[in-house]
Amino acid sequence: MGVNAGASGVGPVSTGLLTDHYELTMLSAALADGTAERSCVFEVFTRRLPDGRRYGVVGGTARVVEAAAAFRFGDAELAHLRETSVVDAATLEWLAAYRFSGDIDGYPEGELFFPGSPVLTVTGTFADAVVLETVVLSILNHDSAIVSAAARMAGAANGRPIIEMGSRRTHEVAAIASARASYLAGFSTTSNLAAGSAYGIPTAGTCAHAFTLLHDDERAAFAAQVSALGVGTTLLVDTYDITQGIATAVEVAGTGLGAIRIDSGDVGVLARHAREQLDGLGATQTRIVVSGDLDEYAIASLRAEPVDAYGVGTSVVTGSGAPTAGMVYKLVEVDGRPVAKRSSHKESRGGRKLALRRHKPTGTALEEVIYAAGGPAPEVGEHDRLLQIPLMRGGQPVPDLPTLEDSRTRVRKGLVSLPWEGLKLSAGDPAIPTVYLEP
Amino acid sequence: MGVNAGASGVGPVSTGLLTDHYELTMLSAALADGTAERSCVFEVFTRRLPDGRRYGVVGGTARVVEAAAAFRFGDAELAHLRETSVVDAATLEWLAAYRFSGDIDGYPEGELFFPGSPVLTVTGTFADAVVLETVVLSILNHDSAIVSAAARMAGAANGRPIIEMGSRRTHEVAAIASARASYLAGFSTTSNLAAGSAYGIPTAGTCAHAFTLLHDDERAAFAAQVSALGVGTTLLVDTYDITQGIATAVEVAGTGLGAIRIDSGDVGVLARHAREQLDGLGATQTRIVVSGDLDEYAIASLRAEPVDAYGVGTSVVTGSGAPTAGMVYKLVEVDGRPVAKRSSHKESRGGRKLALRRHKPTGTALEEVIYAAGGPAPEVGEHDRLLQIPLMRGGQPVPDLPTLEDSRTRVRKGLVSLPWEGLKLSAGDPAIPTVYLEP
Repeated sequence: MGVNAGASGVGPVSTGLLTDHYELTMLSAALADGTAERSCVFEVFTRRLPDGRRYGVVGGTARVVEAAAAFRFGDAELAHLRETSVVDAATLEWLAAYRFSGDIDGYPEGELFFPGSPVLTVTGTFADAVVLETVVLSILNHDSAIVSAAARMAGAANGRPIIEMGSRRTHEVAAIASARASYLAGFSTTSNLAAGSAYGIPTAGTCAHAFTLLHDDERAAFAAQVSALGVGTTLLVDTYDITQGIATAVEVAGTGLGAIRIDSGDVGVLARHAREQLDGLGATQTRIVVSGDLDEYAIASLRAEPVDAYGVGTSVVTGSGAPTAGMVYKLVEVDGRPVAKRSSHKESRGGRKLALRRHKPTGTALEEVIYAAGGPAPEVGEHDRLLQIPLMRGGQPVPDLPTLEDSRTRVRKGLVSLPWEGLKLSAGDPAIPTVYLEP
Repeated sequence: MGVNAGASGVGPVSTGLLTDHYELTMLSAALADGTAERSCVFEVFTRRLPDGRRYGVVGGTARVVEAAAAFRFGDAELAHLRETSVVDAATLEWLAAYRFSGDIDGYPEGELFFPGSPVLTVTGTFADAVVLETVVLSILNHDSAIVSAAARMAGAANGRPIIEMGSRRTHEVAAIASARASYLAGFSTTSNLAAGSAYGIPTAGTCAHAFTLLHDDERAAFAAQVSALGVGTTLLVDTYDITQGIATAVEVAGTGLGAIRIDSGDVGVLARHAREQLDGLGATQTRIVVSGDLDEYAIASLRAEPVDAYGVGTSVVTGSGAPTAGMVYKLVEVDGRPVAKRSSHKESRGGRKLALRRHKPTGTALEEVIYAAGGPAPEVGEHDRLLQIPLMRGGQPVPDLPTLEDSRTRVRKGLVSLPWEGLKLSAGDPAIPTVYLEP
């Protein structure tokens, strides 16, 4: 609530104004003609996955609940809206008292999604629900893009740990959400200290090239690092000559050295040479961390190499080519009546929808079934699963929402449930079809 | 300073923790061995422009100055670092007293940049400067990516106004910076109310499809909107049938209707039909706004169509294929001695560097000249321009830094100075070469 000082250095942060201008002008017009109180259902879904992607993973649900519960227009926001005449006096008064009092249901965070999956359903008066559109979509589009990309990387790493280190490649506050999303997808640690503080995610980091360059020579830098951080630290060996760097690292730290990191060059070849050299020096337990422009394809291509951990930056925080998830927030029901735009190929299906995922007895997913909430319910087989859960009731988060660790487990289980083609990194169709049951 | 409550709904925001773990471990090790006080120069530059881009535009400089001046470790941050043992007690004490006290020079915000351009130079002790790495890069990489993409769109629009409406496609706080960056690049307005409040950027917006769907029919929706917002408003006419929508719009608002908006379909063809229809109805002054997945190429392709304004969302806030600017923060000088990594193709040039841009007498840019600060200075011709300005001295912002409007003007002048090939949207080489003068 309120405005976090520009003086904080991270720019002004408020909740009520994380909103598009048109939401408040719609609100104003709807308050004036009495339609603001109509009972509405808005649905969040994506029409398609990013080009060639075979699945998406829902990210940001917990942040959406937090944002909806905290959404307020404080004095500073109201003053701004008054001064700029964005809305009239009656609307300002309404906004001053605003508390979201509706219901939200949705896919739990970490659940797989496909085209058309109703990942979030917001129920309330038009006024109550329309003002949340932008913040809900910002969070879901950003976080789902990162989780979806990160899950492909975690899959490609096949159990080897990945360190998220992309904060410097994205907006300074988006970096916190990116670290959270990467962890959710299966990354083991992040470099982002704010994410550590906010979400309890383990953070990691040792030294950059600058630390080596700061010193008179590499040996002095390594000695200083080992002295401060212990022999279990990771020494960055590629500032000058890698072979020499590894030799110096083991001389300084001993064969108990925790790890070396290689951040440039053909890291696969270099890792192989490094492994031989380390083993030859007796540092058989010293791990090899590689980083430097890695994405899911590079990670997969390193699977046969003696790499113990990956550091991933740019590609994960930018969604590896798909920086936004393409989700939309559409009004689908007014006073119990289904509504839908219908002028073009972009039309939507009206009415509140439910979803279940059918599975084979082996647990492999078969199809995403979407059906009208009011229509005949499909049979739910023993291996099938209803996908939506209650998230908020009467404006309050429901008790015992999934934790970050719960959601992390859900991602892992979801990936296991995909048909094997679904895990391929190459471009393809969605891993399972979306089937609409006609009412 | 401090932590903006998670309860704000936008997640925790602090300054000191917008930092990678390894910066603090480096700091800790450097404090322990005495190198922390060595006098250092860090340079921010990019090795290359995104694929096919012909120029970049510096964005975020003013936000960097604000962040550096406000960078603090408050009690909550220190407590987190203590509990998680990220650093030792001596380092915690040092961080508690931290105020950046160094100097920053750089390209003014809105200046063009090319591969190797030293867009920011941070001078101070190692300790002072190293902790700023992540936040400086986050801001410059994000904001420069958006400004660079937005400038191409503004160029393609060729004077027609563009409304930035991409908040819902990016992180909720990054959205504010994206709105600022788009405006800087020449966009006329934004939908983002927080950007309006924080930076005085004009905001715009009227109604979405949801508003039409909320009402019993399109006529009722248009009447409500005109009643609340006046006939000067923009009516969204593509919820059902566009031709009928336009007819209804003019019937309801009269021929003084401000504008119509078309958000889907083949907007070029639809705009032509709409113009004919509006003119036939006597609404010759009613403007036509188009939106819906527009990028710089779509904008350019609509140049011959009767379009009065563009609404741009996804493509601008995601940098139109280049969501991060690729800038790095490299230590280039220690106690007056040039330093550089040299193990691979990623080597950097050591030593503090200066830059000037040479121009023809017509004002057209010729080349980016980069030279050692300590070496022989190149001749600065009458049409040439030194590119760096002081931004901070002794930890304080210098007086009279360029305003947002100044920077906006700078972008416009910069684009005019490019050789004509530089403005082409097609993939190509940088518009001017970067020339390094050897000392």
